[in-house]
Amino acid sequence: MTVYSDSFELSCKGDAEIHDVTAEVVRLVAASGIKDGIGLVASPGSTVGITTVEYEPGLVSDLKNLFEKFAPKGERYGHDARWGDGNGHSHVRSSLLGPTFAFPVAGGGPALGTWQQIVFIDFDNKKRRREITVTVVGD
Amino acid sequence: MTVYSDSFELSCKGDAEIHDVTAEVVRLVAASGIKDGIGLVASPGSTVGITTVEYEPGLVSDLKNLFEKFAPKGERYGHDARWGDGNGHSHVRSSLLGPTFAFPVAGGGPALGTWQQIVFIDFDNKKRRREITVTVVGD
Amino acid sequence: MTVYSDSFELSCKGDAEIHDVTAEVVRLVAASGIKDGIGLVASPGSTVGITTVEYEPGLVSDLKNLFEKFAPKGERYGHDARWGDGNGHSHVRSSLLGPTFAFPVAGGGPALGTWQQIVFIDFDNKKRRREITVTVVGD
Repeated sequence: MTVYSDSFELSCKGDAEIHDVTAEVVRLVAASGIKDGIGLVASPGSTVGITTVEYEPGLVSDLKNLFEKFAPKGERYGHDARWGDGNGHSHVRSSLLGPTFAFPVAGGGPALGTWQQIVFIDFDNKKRRREITVTVVGD
Repeated sequence: MTVYSDSFELSCKGDAEIHDVTAEVVRLVAASGIKDGIGLVASPGSTVGITTVEYEPGLVSDLKNLFEKFAPKGERYGHDARWGDGNGHSHVRSSLLGPTFAFPVAGGGPALGTWQQIVFIDFDNKKRRREITVTVVGD
Repeated sequence: MTVYSDSFELSCKGDAEIHDVTAEVVRLVAASGIKDGIGLVASPGSTVGITTVEYEPGLVSDLKNLFEKFAPKGERYGHDARWGDGNGHSHVRSSLLGPTFAFPVAGGGPALGTWQQIVFIDFDNKKRRREITVTVVGD
């Protein structure tokens, strides 16, 4: 049994921009040399989200619309009233979607469907550089 | 420390059909021989979801209603406009709920509450056979 | 490689009360002696949720409002019609948010952002004592 961890960086525009990070995750899981186990994609921060989606332009916009619907940008948030950050919607979206994603590792890679990509979503309202970590435990 | 992984199949009707898979997960965790650790239930695909619920008919229908409310079947999705699959709602529901579920393993089984079952939800709009994988790492 | 697990208790009022449990998680991860790996916070039960948020009063109320919006307390739930518990909303909120949270362990602690706290949410409609478990696998 081994534990492996490495990270990569992303330049993000924010505003629920959705990044396909599958290739990077595949690369790091391969680099780990671990064939079977559990992997975790994570990014420190309270305005990020990680999940999977069929990464095509239609769904990328559908997913953005969903976040806009349940936590609209223009609504009044207690966070904005207190801190004036204007990103209350970014925070609650992150809490609901979750900032980490766990996946099975099989045959030396993440076990995903053919039309399933791992995506990183930056919900914040400004440009940022983000660090994404891939941790794997297994054999 | 060991890693164990095995899978089972489910015949699914789709349309947010909710399956109680607790007994299968309990069986595979027991088969792993691992007493304490972390387990992961996962299914490859971008129209599936895994979570827990008290599995009784009232809540099964409440949960279906919740998905229908935040991502209705009849709405216009960019995915459907582009691909004509008619399952845009299935995809965004899966992204929000998440296609994997991590749980603690204690005493040789999943640590769940008395009224808490692990459920697999097929959000797709057609019948499918699904593969569900249980991965366990621990001692 | 080691597996470690320990738990702590919380007195909860319910009604989507949000507890910052970061200090307890940090303490248990440190106690594990594990420097790098994967951690999991979990609580048995079907009316709980675990995620992260910037824990400040504005966002705590924003997050409660979000749950109230997508699964209002006053709505009709099949669960309440059948069982008369009055907590149908508590259950579906828990299913959507998820009762477990996985995080990377790095440098002997949970890898979180500066403004990111791990929170336990009790969605139930009555006072309860809750047990929260932290499981860590790694080196």
